[in-house]
Amino acid sequence: MAHKVIYDTDPGVDDAMALLFLHQHPAIDLVGITTVFGNATIATTTRNALFLKEKWQIAAPVARGAGHAINPDRVEGPPPAFVHGDNGLGNVAGVPDSVATQPDPRPAFQFIIDTVRANPGEINIVAVGRMTNLALALAAAPDIVGLVKQVVIMGGAFDVPGNVSPVAEANIIGDPEAADIVMTAAWKVVAIGLDVTHQTIMTRAELAETARTGGERVRFLNALSQFYIDFYQHIVDDGMFVHDSCAAVYVVAPELFTNRSGPIRVVSEGIATGQTIQKPDGKFFPPGPWDGYPSQLVSVGIDAAAVLKLIHQTIA
Amino acid sequence: MAHKVIYDTDPGVDDAMALLFLHQHPAIDLVGITTVFGNATIATTTRNALFLKEKWQIAAPVARGAGHAINPDRVEGPPPAFVHGDNGLGNVAGVPDSVATQPDPRPAFQFIIDTVRANPGEINIVAVGRMTNLALALAAAPDIVGLVKQVVIMGGAFDVPGNVSPVAEANIIGDPEAADIVMTAAWKVVAIGLDVTHQTIMTRAELAETARTGGERVRFLNALSQFYIDFYQHIVDDGMFVHDSCAAVYVVAPELFTNRSGPIRVVSEGIATGQTIQKPDGKFFPPGPWDGYPSQLVSVGIDAAAVLKLIHQTIA
Repeated sequence: MAHKVIYDTDPGVDDAMALLFLHQHPAIDLVGITTVFGNATIATTTRNALFLKEKWQIAAPVARGAGHAINPDRVEGPPPAFVHGDNGLGNVAGVPDSVATQPDPRPAFQFIIDTVRANPGEINIVAVGRMTNLALALAAAPDIVGLVKQVVIMGGAFDVPGNVSPVAEANIIGDPEAADIVMTAAWKVVAIGLDVTHQTIMTRAELAETARTGGERVRFLNALSQFYIDFYQHIVDDGMFVHDSCAAVYVVAPELFTNRSGPIRVVSEGIATGQTIQKPDGKFFPPGPWDGYPSQLVSVGIDAAAVLKLIHQTIA
Repeated sequence: MAHKVIYDTDPGVDDAMALLFLHQHPAIDLVGITTVFGNATIATTTRNALFLKEKWQIAAPVARGAGHAINPDRVEGPPPAFVHGDNGLGNVAGVPDSVATQPDPRPAFQFIIDTVRANPGEINIVAVGRMTNLALALAAAPDIVGLVKQVVIMGGAFDVPGNVSPVAEANIIGDPEAADIVMTAAWKVVAIGLDVTHQTIMTRAELAETARTGGERVRFLNALSQFYIDFYQHIVDDGMFVHDSCAAVYVVAPELFTNRSGPIRVVSEGIATGQTIQKPDGKFFPPGPWDGYPSQLVSVGIDAAAVLKLIHQTIA
């Protein structure tokens, strides 16, 4: 039976690759795409999701999600156009200002609630942007914690430095209160953070080769990824971290990851804001803020070569 | 020329070993001992410093320091008697309630200021407890930042878990505001944290052997260390982390350490309170709380075998 997936995303360049992976993998049934602000504004990420749905002939509906963090006092900067381009898709040509395809009438959090309730125990939520939609869904329908199969998150930096501050990863610092709600809820969370995604680099040449042998879809993916690869040249030789695809791969190939269990909390104040901190099970400390929360999984190891091979095979 | 050292300490079992090291090393001139609360109350750590001064015939004066964190709102728990014993010296027999030797009439922070001003450019401050005395000295005499040779701290956990919370080390969480003041001041700081001290374990047998071949001083050190070694059996095979001695060794043998440079900040609020975070030089992040502060050194590697050998040779 196929793995049913709701993909919560802010496309976003690496989001686009993961979308193509989720759409094309034969063992995955992509039942919905929910958008969130992050790599671009909510208007842009939603337009991009609808555009890619049309362009790649994806059946799953798109539901528009949150445009701001759940804490109204949180100061938000401009989206990182220097990473994902002004259009959120690497400034690739051919992205229209608007598309004919309409989003689902429901807001993303309601789409998540309804879909989870209609498929009890079967939905994998693959969340690769801010955790805002998930936190809103939990607030509106606490019963879904018992109905979701698992929540696979691309986010966090546990034993490694962050990418927005020395301790904070972008998806988490973008809405730390939402992330803390999601990580501490009584559902199964797997956090695929920089600990493993920074080990998983697709070179420009590998992506070009995949595009050469693949169809029109992957040629467009290759085109829209060039800006992102250019940006990463200051820390990566000539390639891209496939952050979001790692989370997508986890749904079908969890055996390629090594996980550590323990409660996770997210810092939402002070200089460490956005940091994800796990208290590993079996480690003892005086009573503290991790006590009483469910153990979640943090990926601390990855078979990066096998993950990249599976992505290649699936999207080509 | 000998290295002049002020030893700021909260004895404390591993503090006692470092005190003996500083007293006995031929290239070190121990010019003062300042006490601070931490491993026990300020009354107990000061009594212990005076007692060890008498027992080990140490010439350096003892000045009594701070009994509480600089932030009056910080809630303090009881001292960790389960680690250092009720008497702060592993409940070893023979520690009197009070000693005849009197402390220096000045508070520790004033002793530090006066001694630094009297020895411009020459004083190494080896600080192995809360950073409270140093922060008070900086507040009262900002000029000392230009007069101290270096501040060698035992404290912090940078790339490794803490020992009081998943991210916080005991000396720093005991007065995080003071630690942030000390780390961000424009003097040279070297932080010897759990990253290296947790690699540096003296076994019970090695300490016993040092006691057998050494004199009465090291036999007493061996006796007072047994309680501490017993406590650590849940995480160490049969031995003790020589936390504070690592900082003492650094003064005479910095070549045994590998350091990383970059500004250091300390978290003083929220679930990460007490965490030490360095922004390594050469790593780039958006503007943030590390900007504009001086680069300090964090020890990230240690030749533990050589450090232990030097301690053995010096105290035996």
